[in-house]
Amino acid sequence: MRLSKTFIKTLREAPKDEVARNGALLSRAGYIHKELAGIYDYLPLGVSVIEKIKNIIREELNAIGCEEVQMSALQNPELWEATGRFSDQEVDIWFKTELASGGTLGLAPTHEEPMTNMLKTYISSYKDLPLYVYQFQTKFRNELRAKSGVMRGREFLMKDLYSFHTSEDDLDIFYEKVEKTYARIFNRLGIGDSTFKTFASGGIFSKFSHEYQTILPVGEDTIYYNADKSLVFNKEVFTDEVLAEFNANANDFTEVKAAEVGNIFKLKHKYSKPLNLKYTSESNQEQYVYMGCYGIGVSRLMGVIAEKFADEKGLVWPEEIAPFKYYLVGIGEKGIAEAEKLYKGHENEILFDDREARPGEKFADAELIGIPYRVVISDKTLAEGKVELTSRRDGESKLVDLKELFV
Amino acid sequence: MRLSKTFIKTLREAPKDEVARNGALLSRAGYIHKELAGIYDYLPLGVSVIEKIKNIIREELNAIGCEEVQMSALQNPELWEATGRFSDQEVDIWFKTELASGGTLGLAPTHEEPMTNMLKTYISSYKDLPLYVYQFQTKFRNELRAKSGVMRGREFLMKDLYSFHTSEDDLDIFYEKVEKTYARIFNRLGIGDSTFKTFASGGIFSKFSHEYQTILPVGEDTIYYNADKSLVFNKEVFTDEVLAEFNANANDFTEVKAAEVGNIFKLKHKYSKPLNLKYTSESNQEQYVYMGCYGIGVSRLMGVIAEKFADEKGLVWPEEIAPFKYYLVGIGEKGIAEAEKLYKGHENEILFDDREARPGEKFADAELIGIPYRVVISDKTLAEGKVELTSRRDGESKLVDLKELFV
Repeated sequence: MRLSKTFIKTLREAPKDEVARNGALLSRAGYIHKELAGIYDYLPLGVSVIEKIKNIIREELNAIGCEEVQMSALQNPELWEATGRFSDQEVDIWFKTELASGGTLGLAPTHEEPMTNMLKTYISSYKDLPLYVYQFQTKFRNELRAKSGVMRGREFLMKDLYSFHTSEDDLDIFYEKVEKTYARIFNRLGIGDSTFKTFASGGIFSKFSHEYQTILPVGEDTIYYNADKSLVFNKEVFTDEVLAEFNANANDFTEVKAAEVGNIFKLKHKYSKPLNLKYTSESNQEQYVYMGCYGIGVSRLMGVIAEKFADEKGLVWPEEIAPFKYYLVGIGEKGIAEAEKLYKGHENEILFDDREARPGEKFADAELIGIPYRVVISDKTLAEGKVELTSRRDGESKLVDLKELFV
Repeated sequence: MRLSKTFIKTLREAPKDEVARNGALLSRAGYIHKELAGIYDYLPLGVSVIEKIKNIIREELNAIGCEEVQMSALQNPELWEATGRFSDQEVDIWFKTELASGGTLGLAPTHEEPMTNMLKTYISSYKDLPLYVYQFQTKFRNELRAKSGVMRGREFLMKDLYSFHTSEDDLDIFYEKVEKTYARIFNRLGIGDSTFKTFASGGIFSKFSHEYQTILPVGEDTIYYNADKSLVFNKEVFTDEVLAEFNANANDFTEVKAAEVGNIFKLKHKYSKPLNLKYTSESNQEQYVYMGCYGIGVSRLMGVIAEKFADEKGLVWPEEIAPFKYYLVGIGEKGIAEAEKLYKGHENEILFDDREARPGEKFADAELIGIPYRVVISDKTLAEGKVELTSRRDGESKLVDLKELFV
């Protein structure tokens, strides 16, 4: 992409009311535009990061046999009344709206109910199971406060996966498979070493659920981890009673702030029972389907990763989700001409700063936008037949052969 | 994709209340699931068709320098009050909702207002223009009736492109470019020969707008075309006065039903003025930005194309947007083994009917699902070292070499 041809510009100032660093930096660097608190537009660079996150998740889920769908945002209240979740007393973050032809609809804050109901059309026999169905879909949550940038949106993008099984054993097997898949996803996203599966409070049907928490000073949650980080608890379950169950001692744990980036949950019959999702077993018995659900906050991840790696100069993207791998600057007539040559055929890997601007301005924008590698071509580098390659993460520069760039 | 591994099944019956043929066929063939009237989920085959339509549009728009963004569904009423379009008297298809923290939000039925407002951050000088910004985004319209399947949704996917210019001349030049691009898009979608740019009623700032109408017996619109279809009018402008303007005679026109699949509109200052989107000209004057907007109904196109080509046996997809190119059936032990071999490495092109079912059932599903080519491998075809290739469109079969399939 040529910076001269895109409508986005880096901005000196973030929106006045933007208090979160991720929101401020992503706005200034041209990734997002704020509509209202917790409601954002995604600009070309932001669309690119979101698509890269989605593609990593999609590849990993497809590899374990999951199928992608796209469900509606507008929700039929009947389904949610069946599970007792339509009332504002039970679920206090609904956005609701009125149909012109009469009746109230909800805007989906999550999709367990319509997903369970939809599968009634497709599941009848044990032969139809197991099934794994996911989507990337906008969720709407009527949060009282939304001051965390894209880390807590009133409108945000989530990946939600639902699994359907004949037995609890089969659910357990798939649940473990998803745990391994999530570990791969967070590794590929560049936050594997600071993201942990934690024990969180369960529900009616499970003592615990699991969350994925990324260590982050501005995170909204508090977690406790042991020396080798094999045992991590959310604050709400870090009690003497729970610790006793794990033969653990509170003194061996470190407290740290973290942000939730995913959660996995054994739903068992929680939704299949009230919504009557059954299958006929091998012995010809009607039985309720076992279910699991598995979320990842896609737009939230963009905010968490922005917060996690940013420095005083701006954003620092991990290579796998950076909108471009290289930020290209040509200096001087020859340098610019060589940069033009280098750009050709690599338009998807290079953000080419071909604007009429001083090199210093371009370098500052390269740092703010957070592209992993800056490539500078100037008389000085050309004298040695090389280009200057600077890593955004550690700021180290070296002269390299052009050939080394696109391997 | 293996049919044995996907959760979808073809259905004998469409949803009871589904009166539109596109909705009924797409439901029975496993492309969509109906939530409520005008509100649909997209199943794996449906997601695939939608993505293929999007990619054709995306490629063609990117080729003329358009940039992709993703704006919010939730809308700030202030922007729409500035143009007089927030009141239900002015725009009668709003879905509105209340913020928990106070205030009313709208669900975007279109995005002129937020797009115009957003660009105020990025446009200041004539040097910033022209700009072309588009998105694929869900629109919400509170239709009183929604009985046309995915051809008229209360929640639907649209591509909306907005252009920004310093002058009306520049707007005119880009507008013509979009006309050419739209012709290419509709050609690639397989409906080029039955889709026409029509004169439709304009607004305050233009005598006419243009729509793209696809001839379709169940279409909601009526259009009139002349012998060579170079002049096509929507019913609302097919008046003696307009015809006189074009030196045309009503008797030379044929009346036909059609469905709107796109529209293009010279907005000029309609939104830039009330929302105060200005630029500084070369002579240092503040001037309003000229705008155009260009829509294509993405999910509607899926319905129109389904309606247009379907026959009594089911759907018939044009090759460029079919979810798979081949529907593969192996018959007999050897035929099934050879089909397995053929499938490997071509998973994205082949819908492999590897279910335990009679060939007749598989052939019926192949026709209902509407994949362009059915490939059958049996003892009979293997005896000649070939496979049977049957075109869904004309039903003609021939024996071909395996090598001819993937060229």
